Amino acid sequence: METRLASATPKVPRTGKRRVCFPMTSRAYYGRTQLLVQKLHAHPAIDLQLMLGGSILLDKYSRHIADDIEKGGFSISTSYFNVIEGGNHVAMAKTACLTALEFTNGFHSIDPDIVVVCGDRFEQLAIAMTAAYLNKTIAHIEGGDVTGSIDESVRHAITKLAHIHFVTNADAHRRVLAMGEDPDYVFNTGSLDLELASRVTIALTNDRINGYGVGHAVDITRPFLTVIQHPVTTETENRPHLEATMQAIAQVDLPTIWFWPNPDAGTGEMSESIRHFREHHAAITEKIRFITNVPVDEFIALLRATACLVGNSSAGIKECSFLGTPVVNVGARQQGRLHGEHVVHAPYEAETIARAIRSQLRHGGYGRSDLYYKPDSSQAIVDVIAGIPLYTQKRFRDPVAVPLG
Amino acid sequence: METRLASATPKVPRTGKRRVCFPMTSRAYYGRTQLLVQKLHAHPAIDLQLMLGGSILLDKYSRHIADDIEKGGFSISTSYFNVIEGGNHVAMAKTACLTALEFTNGFHSIDPDIVVVCGDRFEQLAIAMTAAYLNKTIAHIEGGDVTGSIDESVRHAITKLAHIHFVTNADAHRRVLAMGEDPDYVFNTGSLDLELASRVTIALTNDRINGYGVGHAVDITRPFLTVIQHPVTTETENRPHLEATMQAIAQVDLPTIWFWPNPDAGTGEMSESIRHFREHHAAITEKIRFITNVPVDEFIALLRATACLVGNSSAGIKECSFLGTPVVNVGARQQGRLHGEHVVHAPYEAETIARAIRSQLRHGGYGRSDLYYKPDSSQAIVDVIAGIPLYTQKRFRDPVAVPLG
Amino acid sequence: METRLASATPKVPRTGKRRVCFPMTSRAYYGRTQLLVQKLHAHPAIDLQLMLGGSILLDKYSRHIADDIEKGGFSISTSYFNVIEGGNHVAMAKTACLTALEFTNGFHSIDPDIVVVCGDRFEQLAIAMTAAYLNKTIAHIEGGDVTGSIDESVRHAITKLAHIHFVTNADAHRRVLAMGEDPDYVFNTGSLDLELASRVTIALTNDRINGYGVGHAVDITRPFLTVIQHPVTTETENRPHLEATMQAIAQVDLPTIWFWPNPDAGTGEMSESIRHFREHHAAITEKIRFITNVPVDEFIALLRATACLVGNSSAGIKECSFLGTPVVNVGARQQGRLHGEHVVHAPYEAETIARAIRSQLRHGGYGRSDLYYKPDSSQAIVDVIAGIPLYTQKRFRDPVAVPLG
Amino acid sequence: METRLASATPKVPRTGKRRVCFPMTSRAYYGRTQLLVQKLHAHPAIDLQLMLGGSILLDKYSRHIADDIEKGGFSISTSYFNVIEGGNHVAMAKTACLTALEFTNGFHSIDPDIVVVCGDRFEQLAIAMTAAYLNKTIAHIEGGDVTGSIDESVRHAITKLAHIHFVTNADAHRRVLAMGEDPDYVFNTGSLDLELASRVTIALTNDRINGYGVGHAVDITRPFLTVIQHPVTTETENRPHLEATMQAIAQVDLPTIWFWPNPDAGTGEMSESIRHFREHHAAITEKIRFITNVPVDEFIALLRATACLVGNSSAGIKECSFLGTPVVNVGARQQGRLHGEHVVHAPYEAETIARAIRSQLRHGGYGRSDLYYKPDSSQAIVDVIAGIPLYTQKRFRDPVAVPLG
Repeated sequence: METRLASATPKVPRTGKRRVCFPMTSRAYYGRTQLLVQKLHAHPAIDLQLMLGGSILLDKYSRHIADDIEKGGFSISTSYFNVIEGGNHVAMAKTACLTALEFTNGFHSIDPDIVVVCGDRFEQLAIAMTAAYLNKTIAHIEGGDVTGSIDESVRHAITKLAHIHFVTNADAHRRVLAMGEDPDYVFNTGSLDLELASRVTIALTNDRINGYGVGHAVDITRPFLTVIQHPVTTETENRPHLEATMQAIAQVDLPTIWFWPNPDAGTGEMSESIRHFREHHAAITEKIRFITNVPVDEFIALLRATACLVGNSSAGIKECSFLGTPVVNVGARQQGRLHGEHVVHAPYEAETIARAIRSQLRHGGYGRSDLYYKPDSSQAIVDVIAGIPLYTQKRFRDPVAVPLG
Repeated sequence: METRLASATPKVPRTGKRRVCFPMTSRAYYGRTQLLVQKLHAHPAIDLQLMLGGSILLDKYSRHIADDIEKGGFSISTSYFNVIEGGNHVAMAKTACLTALEFTNGFHSIDPDIVVVCGDRFEQLAIAMTAAYLNKTIAHIEGGDVTGSIDESVRHAITKLAHIHFVTNADAHRRVLAMGEDPDYVFNTGSLDLELASRVTIALTNDRINGYGVGHAVDITRPFLTVIQHPVTTETENRPHLEATMQAIAQVDLPTIWFWPNPDAGTGEMSESIRHFREHHAAITEKIRFITNVPVDEFIALLRATACLVGNSSAGIKECSFLGTPVVNVGARQQGRLHGEHVVHAPYEAETIARAIRSQLRHGGYGRSDLYYKPDSSQAIVDVIAGIPLYTQKRFRDPVAVPLG
Repeated sequence: METRLASATPKVPRTGKRRVCFPMTSRAYYGRTQLLVQKLHAHPAIDLQLMLGGSILLDKYSRHIADDIEKGGFSISTSYFNVIEGGNHVAMAKTACLTALEFTNGFHSIDPDIVVVCGDRFEQLAIAMTAAYLNKTIAHIEGGDVTGSIDESVRHAITKLAHIHFVTNADAHRRVLAMGEDPDYVFNTGSLDLELASRVTIALTNDRINGYGVGHAVDITRPFLTVIQHPVTTETENRPHLEATMQAIAQVDLPTIWFWPNPDAGTGEMSESIRHFREHHAAITEKIRFITNVPVDEFIALLRATACLVGNSSAGIKECSFLGTPVVNVGARQQGRLHGEHVVHAPYEAETIARAIRSQLRHGGYGRSDLYYKPDSSQAIVDVIAGIPLYTQKRFRDPVAVPLG
Repeated sequence: METRLASATPKVPRTGKRRVCFPMTSRAYYGRTQLLVQKLHAHPAIDLQLMLGGSILLDKYSRHIADDIEKGGFSISTSYFNVIEGGNHVAMAKTACLTALEFTNGFHSIDPDIVVVCGDRFEQLAIAMTAAYLNKTIAHIEGGDVTGSIDESVRHAITKLAHIHFVTNADAHRRVLAMGEDPDYVFNTGSLDLELASRVTIALTNDRINGYGVGHAVDITRPFLTVIQHPVTTETENRPHLEATMQAIAQVDLPTIWFWPNPDAGTGEMSESIRHFREHHAAITEKIRFITNVPVDEFIALLRATACLVGNSSAGIKECSFLGTPVVNVGARQQGRLHGEHVVHAPYEAETIARAIRSQLRHGGYGRSDLYYKPDSSQAIVDVIAGIPLYTQKRFRDPVAVPLG
C-alpha cells in the first residue's frame, strides 16, 4: 500500500540530497533562525524546503515577510492559512489542530528526511506530532529549558517526539538527557538568537524606529524603555497583568517602545486593553510608541539601545544576557529559566514593577554573559543535520544517575 | 473575553461535583477501563462525561459498543466520526488532527476539571494536546512504559502534557519521575487490565467463541493458539511481518483464533494480506477462525484457555503475566517493556516463531506474576481523581539523582 | 446503522415540538431577524435552537452579541469559533468549509426538523449543504434576488438545496419558480428588514452615536452622510474601489459616519486602506467617525436621519426604499437588484460618486416604497414553519411557461 | 494583499496555456471521463492538472487507479485522503467538508483558470463551492438531469455555481436555461459515457470476469443478470431495499454478477446486509459473484452481454439506452430521469422486481436509442474549454418564456 501511496502523490522530485523541511509559523522564527536557514539553503548536501503557516502569513503580524523570504532565494513549498480568529484558548487549540492537518498533507507531498521544529510555540507541537506519525526524523531546537505558560508543556512534549536535539545551555542539556533521550543525539550548540545578536552591528536611528507603528515619537538618543509582554496562556487574567505594566510605565514616565502581544490565547483581551488605554486614557500612553514588529537586526539594535527591557519576552533572558541590557521580567512566563544577573523579577504589581525599573535604570548596563552563547551555533547545527545518521524508532534511554546541575 | 466566551457557549450545567471527561477512542479502552468507568460514574463527588470518537464508533471494530455503554447508564456527552480511511500513515495522522479539532469543541462545551487520557494510542496524544491548550488538568493512565512503535513517542509526550500520572509498575514510576514530573502526582496503581483479569471467572464455550467472526470452528476444549498481531507504525514492512506469523502458525498446525489487526497505519496491508491468504491459500488458513473482537471478559477467558498467545499485543506482556499463559512475542512492538518469564521473544521469521511456539507448548502454563498487578487499581485511581488538589501550570522538577531499577 | 448512530449520540431530548435550528453567523443576522427569532422562540409548537458560528462570535464584529442573545432568553445550542484569519479568498473559503464541518456535528447532535438559512453569505451555503446531506428540511429566507459579488451564486445555490422559500419581492418569487421549486413551498412574505424598520420609532442622539467607534464627533442634528462599503469578493481591486469613495466623501466635505467593511474576502485590504488614510492622510478623514456596528434599531434610526447613504450595502436598496433615504449605490455588489427610485448608481470613480451624492442631497428624501415591504413578514414565516408538511427529497418542477415580470 | 498572497505561495509555474483542474473523487469519474481527460491532456493550449481525493484513493473502491492514471502520463497535482469512515450521513457530510477544505489549498496552489466538476456526487458540490469562493471559472458536466436521492439537489446547486455547462440531453438543456444560466454557455454535447460505450469493442471472457471479486463463477456465455444497487441517501431503509432485490434475484435463479454499493451514506448497512447473506444464507447467494469494480471497457462489455441489468445505476438509464440492454430500475434513485423504452420500473418489492426481470428476459434486447448520445462528445467539450471567453461574476438571466419539452 505504501508503494501505491507514493506513486499516487506528486512528491517533490528527490535530488539525492538530504531533504530538510522547516515549518515557519511566526515572524520570530524567520528572524531568529535566519543564519541557520541561510546555511541550510547553501549546504550542498541539503535540499531545504520552507513551509509557511500560522501567523507568519498574516499581514498584521508580519507584513511582507513572505516577500522577504522569497527575496532570500529560498523555496517556499507550501503556505497554509490556518489561524482561527478569537484570541482565546479555543481558537488557539483549533489553530494547532488545523495546522497539523494541513502540514500532514504538506509533509506527505514533500516527503522530507528531517523536519526541523523550533522552540515551544503551541503549533510547533502539533507539527511535531504529525511529523512523528509520518515517521519523519524530527530535529528540535531549544529544548530542555524551563519556563512558565503552556510553553513549558509544549517544549518537553516536543522533546519526547524529537530524535535530534539542539539545546542552548548546559541545564537544558542535562534535562533532555534526564528525559531519556539518546546522548549521541543531544547537542549544546548555544542560542541562535545570540549568535545573531553577536553579529548585528547596525545602529538604530530615530527616523527608522519612528517609521514603524503608531503613537508618539521616541527619541532613542536619550534613555527610553522597551516593553514586550505576551499573554500567558495558562493564566486567566492577562488583562490586569498588562495593565499593571502599563501603570508602571506611566509612573516611570520615560519614552517607551511597546510591542503588541503575540497571537497566543489571551491576546484579544491584551490588545483590547491597549486600545482602551489609547482611546480613553491618552495621558497614560502619551510617551508610548506601539509597534507590531521590526526586522530582527533592528530589534537587536533596539535592545542594545534601550535603558531597560520590561515584560516577559525570552529576549529579556537570552539576547539581553549577551547584550548586558537591564531587564525587569514580569510574572510567570519565564519562571525557572536559567538567567544572568541582568534580570530582576517582578510580580504583576505596578508599584513593584516601577520600583524594579528605577533600580535597573540606576544600575545601568551589565557585562556580557555567555550562559546561552556559543560562536557558530548555526554552523554546528547544520553540520549535524547534514551528516548525522537518521533514525525514526525512539527508545527511552534510562539515564545513568545524573548529578544535579 | 473569557467571560463572554463562557456565556456564549452552552456549557453542560455545573453540579458542584468535579467534572471528569473520559475520551474513548477505541473498543479496547471501554473494555479495559470498565471497572474505573463504573467507579467514576458511581462516585458522589464526580460528574463523569464520556466522549466518543475514533474507531470506537465504527461497526467493524466495535459493533454495538455505544449501545453497551448507554446500557451501562453512562452519559455520552459527544460522539464524533473522525476516522479517515486509508489505513496508512497519512490517514492516521489526519485522524489524530481531526479528532483533536473536534474534541476541542467538546471540551469547550463540557468544560471538564479533569481529562483522563489512557495509554499510548496516537489519537490520545492529540486529545491531550488540545486539553492542555484549554488549560485542563490531564490525568494519564499507563505512562512510563517502554515499547516500540510510535506508541513509545506518544506515551512519553503525553506524560509531558499530563498533570497526574497513574503508572502500572515500578520501572514506569521511576521513568516518569526522571522526566521531571512532580513526585506528589505520580502513582503506581497497577494495571487496570490485570485488576479486571483477576475478577473474570466465566469460562468460554465452543458455542460462544465460534459465534464470532468467520472461518473454521475452533474446539477450545483442546489445545489451540491465539494470534494478535497489530501493525507497527514505525515499520514499512507490516505485510511480510504478518506473513511470517501466518507461515509459523501453518507449520505448528494447531487450531487458532486470530484477531484482526487494529486500525493503525499499516492495517490496510495486513488486512489485505489476511484476505489474500483466505481467498487464495485456503490450506494455510484452514484451521484458523478470524475474529474482530469479543467482550472483554470473554477475551480474558480466551487468554486463560489458550495454549500460547502469539503476536505483539500488550495483552501478552500484561494480562498473560498474571494469567500465566505462555506468550511468543513477535518483533519490535513491545520491545523494552518490562515482562515476566512467560514471554519468549521472536523476530519476524516463520521458522523461529514456530520453534518458539513449540517450545512454549512444551513448557505449558507459568506461575502468576505480580509485575503489573495490584488489587483495587481502579479504586486507587478514583480516590486520587476525586480528591487531589488540581493544577494546570506545569513545572519541570529536576529529579534528585535516581538509582537505576 | 442509523439506529445505533442515534443511540450513540447525545441528542437534545425531543419535546414533541417541531425543532427548528437557526444558524447565526453574522451580527447582521441577529439584528435583522430578531422579530422572527422572537416569534419562533415564543411559538408553542416550535423548539428553537440557535447555533452560533463565524464572525458573530468575534468581538471586533459583534461585541457582546452572544450576551445579548442569552439575555433574550434564547437557547444557544452550540457555538463554534471557525473564522480563519487572512481577509482573502482562501481564508473565506476555508472558513466556509470548517463551518460546515462543525455544524455537521451540531446538526447531528441537535437533530432538527428544519434548518433556517438566511440570505446569501458564503458560510450559509456551506451550512445548507451539510444540512441537505443530513436530510434536514431547509427553509431559506431572501432567495431569488439578483445582485453582484459571490452572493449571486451563493443565493441561488442555496435555493436549489432548500425546501421552503421565503422571498421578499415579486421578482424573486418568479425566479425561484423558474429554477424548478415547488410553487406550494415558495412564499413572498416581504422583507424582515423592512418589517423591523417599520417598527423602529427611537430617535438617535449625538451622545449615543458618538459613543461608538473612533474618529471625529458627528453632529447628527445637521446634514451628514453614512457610508457602508463592503468588499466585492469577485473583484480583485477592492482597495482602489474604497479609495474612490473616500475621495468622494472628502470632496463633498460633510460629516460622515463610516462603517467598517464586513469580513468577506477583500476586507483586509479595505481595512488597511482605511487605517492608512487615518494615519497618513488625516485631513481626508477629518470629518469621519468610524464605527464597527450599532444595535439594529439605532441603525434604522441612523439611516432615517442620514442625508444620503453611500456605498454598496443592501440596506441602501431595501431599508432605504421604505425609509425614503437617498442612496448612492457604488459599483457592482447590488447590480441587477430590484430597487426604487431613491437609488442612484455610480461606478468606482470619485468624481462621479461625489456628483451623485450632491445630486441626492439636493433632492432630499423620497416617498416610501413597498417593493420589499409587507406587514407581518415574521408572523407569516413562523406560521409556515410551524405548520407546513415537511419533505426532504427534492424534485425539479418543470415550470409552466412563466411570462417575464 | 492578493499580490502578496500570490508570491507567498508556491504556485505551479504558469505556461501561457489555459490551466484546467480536474478533481477526481471516485473511480467512476476516471473511467467515464477518460476520453475527455486524454483530449484535455493532449490539447496544445491546455495545461491539465488532475487532483485526486475521496474514494478514488482507497484500495477497496479503486485498487491501483492512481497507478493507472500515472501510467497514462497525466500529471497528478495533489492527492488528499479525506474519506471519513462510517458509511452514514454524518460521515458523508464531513467527508464533503474536509474535501472542500483541502481542495481550497490545492486550488490556491495550482491557481487554475477552469475547474471541471462532474455529475452530482456530494463531494463535487463541496469542491464547486470552494472553487467559486476562489473566483475560479467552473465548468460542469451532466447538469440539468432530474433524479432522486441527494444527487438531485447537488446537481442543480452545482449548476447555480458553475459558469459553463455541458449537458447530455435536450431536457437537461431546457432546465439549465430555466434556472437562469447564460444560453451562450450551455452546450448539449451528449453523454461521455455513451461516447465511450460506442467505442468499446472488446468481448468479455469467463476467465476475465471470474478473476474479479469473490463468490461463485458465472458463465457469461449463457444468460446472466447484473445487479448494481447503490444506497439512496435520502432514504432511511436501504437495507430492506437491498434485500428485496436479493430475494428477487434468488427467485429468478440465474447466475448473477453483483457490484458492491458505492460509498454513499447507507453503504454500511447495505454491505453488512450482503455479508450477512453470504455468511448465513449461503443458498441465496449461491449463484452470485460479488465484484467491487472492473475497468470501464470491460464494464461496457459486461452490460452488453448481460440479459438484464437490475438496480438503480445511471448506467441502466444511459449506457443501456445505447446498448439496448433490458433494465429493471428499482426504486427512487433515478426517478424523473429521461429514459428509453428499455427501462421497466419496479418498487422495492421482491415479487414485483422478479416479475419485471422475467418480463425483460422474455423481451430480450432493445434497439439503440440516441436520447443521450452524440458522437464526439469529448471533443466538443474540449473545444469549448480551450476557447470560450472566461468569466467569473455570475448573473441570473431571466429566461424568455420557454415552452415545455
